[in-house]
Amino acid sequence: MTRALTVSIDAMGGDAGPGIVVDALVRALQRHPQVQFLLHGDETQLHALVSKHPKLQGRVSVKHASGRVAMEDKPSHVLRRGRDTSMWHAIDSVKQGEADVAISAGNTGALMAVSMFGLGIVEGISRPAIATIWPTLKGQTIVLDVGANVEASDEQLVDFAVMGEAFAHVIFGLERPTVGILNVGSEEQKGNDAVKGAAQILRNSNLPMAFHGFVEGNDIAKGTVDVVVTDGFTGNIALKTAEGTARLIGAYMRQSLKRSVLGRIGAMVASGALKTLRRKLDPRANAGGIFLGLNGVVVKCHGGADAISFASAMDMAIDMAKANINVRITADRNAMRAAASQAAQA
Amino acid sequence: MTRALTVSIDAMGGDAGPGIVVDALVRALQRHPQVQFLLHGDETQLHALVSKHPKLQGRVSVKHASGRVAMEDKPSHVLRRGRDTSMWHAIDSVKQGEADVAISAGNTGALMAVSMFGLGIVEGISRPAIATIWPTLKGQTIVLDVGANVEASDEQLVDFAVMGEAFAHVIFGLERPTVGILNVGSEEQKGNDAVKGAAQILRNSNLPMAFHGFVEGNDIAKGTVDVVVTDGFTGNIALKTAEGTARLIGAYMRQSLKRSVLGRIGAMVASGALKTLRRKLDPRANAGGIFLGLNGVVVKCHGGADAISFASAMDMAIDMAKANINVRITADRNAMRAAASQAAQA
Repeated sequence: MTRALTVSIDAMGGDAGPGIVVDALVRALQRHPQVQFLLHGDETQLHALVSKHPKLQGRVSVKHASGRVAMEDKPSHVLRRGRDTSMWHAIDSVKQGEADVAISAGNTGALMAVSMFGLGIVEGISRPAIATIWPTLKGQTIVLDVGANVEASDEQLVDFAVMGEAFAHVIFGLERPTVGILNVGSEEQKGNDAVKGAAQILRNSNLPMAFHGFVEGNDIAKGTVDVVVTDGFTGNIALKTAEGTARLIGAYMRQSLKRSVLGRIGAMVASGALKTLRRKLDPRANAGGIFLGLNGVVVKCHGGADAISFASAMDMAIDMAKANINVRITADRNAMRAAASQAAQA
Repeated sequence: MTRALTVSIDAMGGDAGPGIVVDALVRALQRHPQVQFLLHGDETQLHALVSKHPKLQGRVSVKHASGRVAMEDKPSHVLRRGRDTSMWHAIDSVKQGEADVAISAGNTGALMAVSMFGLGIVEGISRPAIATIWPTLKGQTIVLDVGANVEASDEQLVDFAVMGEAFAHVIFGLERPTVGILNVGSEEQKGNDAVKGAAQILRNSNLPMAFHGFVEGNDIAKGTVDVVVTDGFTGNIALKTAEGTARLIGAYMRQSLKRSVLGRIGAMVASGALKTLRRKLDPRANAGGIFLGLNGVVVKCHGGADAISFASAMDMAIDMAKANINVRITADRNAMRAAASQAAQA
């Protein structure tokens, strides 16, 4: 690489506007002293924000984009008419080789469509997937797909397993990550044709992973496996159900602690402990959605992202760019295909 | 009814054995002074347990069944060879008109198979579903299907909506329950063909419900609608993911409160409030799975049920028997079919 590692940012994507993006940059600059940043969006607005932070000088460039993708825009509409948007420009910088990774807090469907169109899919992979990192009793588990595909065939689930395994390898440093397929029971005969077919293929594969078989919904938070594979319909619903449950419990907790004088005193005394708890459960510490299977690294921040979560999305994107994840995905997928065709010939 | 309302119980079904069933009976007797109970299982064991509680005399009968269904038995195996089991006998009592409802904490798949075989499906409904009651910010929401069918067509999802609406009506007393279909987004174009087709049918129906459209995973705990409709694959995974999340948060909470002396003192002082919280989140207060769409009421308790949860499953079953839920399901389904064929003719 003749230039420094560069992060391309859709500065107009999130609900909160470019202000939080610039605040996130200030955090990220300190953590990644060698990295350059490219901001796409309204020039006037961005220059005004950037100029407030002298530290950003020489580390951040601004590129003008006149349009922006709205949260309610259909992906097909953005593909036809979105070439002037900050999202399109952010992906295009990666395509043109000006940047190594792209980050956006914008419309997920549009970002996936623009990324697929601009960057293309990794050879040997049929469909990209969105991965997320889930906090567990044992640490962290990767769950994918959480929303790119509303349906997935057995072969596509196998692709997701390959991508998840590669991600666990390069990001968590695991030599042989354990991989499970999300199902309604752990017995072999359970589930629909897609999960049964995928399990069959993975059981006979020689990938650098330990295939665990089926896991159930409660196994995600238990940390039973390092990688949980599912289709984007189920994965998205599981993720949002978990978020809803966490919020419900938080509300219960506030109610019960406020109900009595002793509860209020207890909450005050225990406030340090409760803060630790909140930090562990803070969705802002979560990088959001990681797009896997594209010729380029794209990370999707939550639409409601603040500076903290935007900065952690940058951390993740930078780690992935450094680790060269796609090299491993391609190698594993090809090795698997070769083994399968050898087995078919024998 | 010439005889008293009677509850038929598979006393050998749960992991904990018949002891907790008899303890649950002692609780239920007080709450339902007019109800009779029929226990199916090992005669010697059951008589010994029942004789310890003089209050049970005259309210509980024991019927001998020599076999029991194991948790790992396949439903097809139980259908072929399970006629001597306590589960089969429990359902058969409802079929023979000796009892009005059946309860088991045994193998869910086997219980559904035996129930379908023994009782048959309500006229006009294509497949039964398992419903559960979910605690929410606003109170409670019914979610179905949580595990009877790994796939569901648009028409089947509509059946689930009808059954959920009827359940919300008779159990929660709601005149026009709000109903939503679980999806990956709330916009009309989102999701797979089944959810889009079902939404289309429900939008044009004249059922006594308010069709809300699509809801997302986080809407369940938010209490956005009274009834959430989904296929049994997604519903089962959402339910178990929520359980896993609650357990994870509980573990985090214990860890953070124990970490510091102040946290420990705070937890002691706040222990009353934390107890209230635990009570609200106690899965034992949840009745388990309610089988809807069968010619008879069947309630499935958690396999790991204790006396408290077994007793709340009995409460639910007794309420459903009193309310005659199937009359409403049939009426609503028929009204809907009639309206649809009228619309087709016009």
